[in-house]
Amino acid sequence: MEKQSIDYDHIRAVEWEKEGLRLIDQRLLPTRNKNIFFGNVVDVANAITDMVVRGAPAIGITAAYGVVLAARTRFRQDGVDWQATIQQDLETLKAARPTAVNLAWAVDKLAAIAADLNPETDPEPVLLEAAKQIHADDIDANHKMGQLGAGLIAPGSGVLTHCNTGALATGGYGTALGVIRAGYASGAIKEVYADETRPWLQGARLTAWELVQEKIPVTLIADGAAAFLMKQGKVQWVIVGSDRIAANGDVANKIGTYSTAVAARHHGVRFMVVAPTSTVDMGTATGADIPIETRGQEELLAFGGRRIAPEGASAWNPVFDVTPAELVDAIVTERGVVEHPTAAKMAAMMTK
Amino acid sequence: MEKQSIDYDHIRAVEWEKEGLRLIDQRLLPTRNKNIFFGNVVDVANAITDMVVRGAPAIGITAAYGVVLAARTRFRQDGVDWQATIQQDLETLKAARPTAVNLAWAVDKLAAIAADLNPETDPEPVLLEAAKQIHADDIDANHKMGQLGAGLIAPGSGVLTHCNTGALATGGYGTALGVIRAGYASGAIKEVYADETRPWLQGARLTAWELVQEKIPVTLIADGAAAFLMKQGKVQWVIVGSDRIAANGDVANKIGTYSTAVAARHHGVRFMVVAPTSTVDMGTATGADIPIETRGQEELLAFGGRRIAPEGASAWNPVFDVTPAELVDAIVTERGVVEHPTAAKMAAMMTK
Repeated sequence: MEKQSIDYDHIRAVEWEKEGLRLIDQRLLPTRNKNIFFGNVVDVANAITDMVVRGAPAIGITAAYGVVLAARTRFRQDGVDWQATIQQDLETLKAARPTAVNLAWAVDKLAAIAADLNPETDPEPVLLEAAKQIHADDIDANHKMGQLGAGLIAPGSGVLTHCNTGALATGGYGTALGVIRAGYASGAIKEVYADETRPWLQGARLTAWELVQEKIPVTLIADGAAAFLMKQGKVQWVIVGSDRIAANGDVANKIGTYSTAVAARHHGVRFMVVAPTSTVDMGTATGADIPIETRGQEELLAFGGRRIAPEGASAWNPVFDVTPAELVDAIVTERGVVEHPTAAKMAAMMTK
Repeated sequence: MEKQSIDYDHIRAVEWEKEGLRLIDQRLLPTRNKNIFFGNVVDVANAITDMVVRGAPAIGITAAYGVVLAARTRFRQDGVDWQATIQQDLETLKAARPTAVNLAWAVDKLAAIAADLNPETDPEPVLLEAAKQIHADDIDANHKMGQLGAGLIAPGSGVLTHCNTGALATGGYGTALGVIRAGYASGAIKEVYADETRPWLQGARLTAWELVQEKIPVTLIADGAAAFLMKQGKVQWVIVGSDRIAANGDVANKIGTYSTAVAARHHGVRFMVVAPTSTVDMGTATGADIPIETRGQEELLAFGGRRIAPEGASAWNPVFDVTPAELVDAIVTERGVVEHPTAAKMAAMMTK
């Protein structure tokens, strides 16, 4: 992908290079920045499952390139039968992480193109072009949202973000972190604070790493310090991404997001959600209908293989929470800004 | 100190044994339960600074025993001049940590007794008696507060606590955790949730350890999950301790406390602060006048000794925050309960 002529846009976690797929191994960040190269779809599916790559848009793009690799292998091995034999690869990819909606969306999109191809022609060029388009469209959406979101922020503001929503979570640039990149470039944003984001520490490990790479100063805080930071007037906006936005504007996002939304409202700090329209699920009426994944207790009871809580303690580990629309000041998508979201406003934006 | 005939009261972190001071090294819990013995005041001051012992009341009691050790050494070394030469030891102790008022309170109390002694007589027996009295009074106060606080809680309630306010943070039994012990014993409390309490993980490492020792079931949560827990109706009270309470009822406590207070108010969950009157500083008008300790960035940039954030990231690490009196439903001291605290109510309680 050619370099974008946009400030603070130097990281690509997912990239097609020469004959295959390169991923940054996000499990090793920030202490090691290691690339892994993939030429095989099963390895790509395992990389998604094992969280070499994470973030819903990044997972979708990775899966699209995975379909390209699958088609290459099947065409070489199976000749004109490749459209039949690739089906099991598509299922393997879609099963890699069942909750990420972008994964199935991207695989289905390439599968539809593949089904229409002449079975006797090498499918790789056409499918690769389609995968690159999904990737480029994601980056374009992020640049667009970056400008829209930054436009809401008064010059010289401080902002707080939660989890990682940057180049590492997307095709590049990021959603909420894209707004922060654009806002820092324009002078709207002067200070960036990042919640460390327990239990997986995406803020400390990934968001801080991205911002250090881009030479945007970042100050980490414990998640519990966010309200005290707001009380001191240090931030004017909380800016987050989303894993799913319901039809009424309720927002599912990384656990801890709701806590920052409640604190923001208490302090008159504004709350912005940045996500492409592919994250908006008009088939889900409200946040109460969004299934919330609860992961293993060991994510809280241990860290890095080292036990931090005593044997005998248990833990509650929901990895997402829901912020009701009434606590959201603005939802930013590539189609525009929805202020104080309601079901009617969301429907209007989605039918633009 | 003799064993109390009270349920769930089996842990003592600070104890005078034979000729010196025994502390549990709280930095090693829960994986190791190791005692350290002290015979020297400078080592005691360092132990407070380095958080071998922490928790405002426990620090005060430790410092009182530190004065005993200082007097012993000074009397042996300097003879009748000990009352002059001990002054620098008293200053060293008082400077060990800035926020907890109990430290200065305990040192000043023993200093006043020391000043009245005959300089030719060994001061150790009198000062040791006074230190033991401070210790015993603290445990008595905790038992009293446990009953008072538990009395506010409807049977079968769920509660959330933050940091560690138990036997490890006090002379024994605990303040907020004393209320939880008493409430669990009486049936008022059915479910105990504990914030893990980043960055030092006092909730995961210490509160969970104490409750497991006492066979009281405990569920850990990430600090950021507290608001989501409240939204689900799982807790009726947040119960915390304090490092300093201002004359108007503003409460300094472990970073993250304020965030839970804001979330509690948003959800109609009640907020209880449990602390002995030695924590109330009538000389500090409001929370704005309480000095807030900021510790090293490395406590956030690393986790369990392992680097988690990239080089180049910075961190803001205030270890306390201030919860304004208007977010507090009840302050429980050994002298009684102050509901919806104000300066007038606090003054009335303190002059009881």
